[in-house]
Amino acid sequence: MELLLLSNSTSDAGYLVHAHDALRELAAGRTRACFLPFAGVTRDWDTYEALVRDALAPAGIEAHSPHRLSDADCVRAVEAAELIVIGGGNTFRLLQCLRERGLLPVIARQVAADAARYIGWSAGTNVACPTIRTTNDMPVADPGGLDALALVPFQINPHYFNLVVPGFRGETRDQRLAEFTVLQPRMPVLGLPEGNWVRVSGDRMEMGGAHGARWFLGQKIADVAPGALSVPAGAAAI
Amino acid sequence: MELLLLSNSTSDAGYLVHAHDALRELAAGRTRACFLPFAGVTRDWDTYEALVRDALAPAGIEAHSPHRLSDADCVRAVEAAELIVIGGGNTFRLLQCLRERGLLPVIARQVAADAARYIGWSAGTNVACPTIRTTNDMPVADPGGLDALALVPFQINPHYFNLVVPGFRGETRDQRLAEFTVLQPRMPVLGLPEGNWVRVSGDRMEMGGAHGARWFLGQKIADVAPGALSVPAGAAAI
Repeated sequence: MELLLLSNSTSDAGYLVHAHDALRELAAGRTRACFLPFAGVTRDWDTYEALVRDALAPAGIEAHSPHRLSDADCVRAVEAAELIVIGGGNTFRLLQCLRERGLLPVIARQVAADAARYIGWSAGTNVACPTIRTTNDMPVADPGGLDALALVPFQINPHYFNLVVPGFRGETRDQRLAEFTVLQPRMPVLGLPEGNWVRVSGDRMEMGGAHGARWFLGQKIADVAPGALSVPAGAAAI
Repeated sequence: MELLLLSNSTSDAGYLVHAHDALRELAAGRTRACFLPFAGVTRDWDTYEALVRDALAPAGIEAHSPHRLSDADCVRAVEAAELIVIGGGNTFRLLQCLRERGLLPVIARQVAADAARYIGWSAGTNVACPTIRTTNDMPVADPGGLDALALVPFQINPHYFNLVVPGFRGETRDQRLAEFTVLQPRMPVLGLPEGNWVRVSGDRMEMGGAHGARWFLGQKIADVAPGALSVPAGAAAI
């Protein structure tokens, strides 16, 4: 299984520019990418396809979206791809569209069989996890259940930071994640900051990017530096 | 139907202190309150009950939680209450617990029949809406569907503000709400800032608190001052 799970798409350098080297390494010469734009809500899917096609071209990747096709042809497009690419936007809307089109088992099977490599960012990283229970997004659509692709045995919280805003009486990010770990004490969550990513290659995992990240498991919190990454001890096997 | 829907519970003055007058006006001499603490996740339900009991006492309200009872007795406790009070925490966990215990139709019926008056804050305000699709909370539990009590014919986004954080590449609050209004263009959303509340009394609505709020309907945004409140023209009838 070969995965590249990015926290986010944008930086001051431009769309996906911070990830060009990581994208090229993951692709390893593969060019035929199926891009799924379903997380786009305020950005329409044609526009989103064009944006990502242009952004991936410098990394040698040719991306096409199957969103104009029938559900059956959409499945075939995913099955024919060397790279499956899922972009950010709204995680609930994304999961709803993937489930409605019957794509969840297809993607999981193709990636598990190494027939395709997986690239995701933001919402596309959330759906690579066992569930979308650690997304930051608003539940603007009903995804028909929170279970997702389970390509990794832990949760990721993208765009991670624990900002405390003066005057805001809602929960901080760490308080929200603590709610998750109270209800699922043996499921680890990786708080992945802006600009970072996780690279999974078979049994090995590495975190790229400039920042430290944070593991949450039950009541335990552990900071982790870029480099080799491993799931914390005490995690449930899934 | 008599409702008091608060954006939040806390202020520098203490828990619910900013709402004492509004709580007393809503209660209008009624004292027997059933408090549902199910949104509490990191705060256990016994602790939450004690906190709210003490916070409501100065407003002349005696709150008890039925969380130690059987589901059937829990329903009976809600049916016997003059005031139904639902506090904040995690909206997904709250809706899951209400649905599992069969409380959603019971609460809706009691409030619609004016047998009980409703007080909610934060998550308790979210569940008074048609769905919880405009909550800010993390989906840490699966609520078995996003439909809720529908005591009002519009959505509320509590803890509303449109903060733009430098360096954060995720969505702002207005961008999240724009995703909702793209998918549900005829359902209004009221962005209700910290410290404000909505008082519904039969056909009349009023917004209390010190701040302006904001209506979102389709692509239209309208600021609204405290005082008489009405659903914007163009909203769907539900």
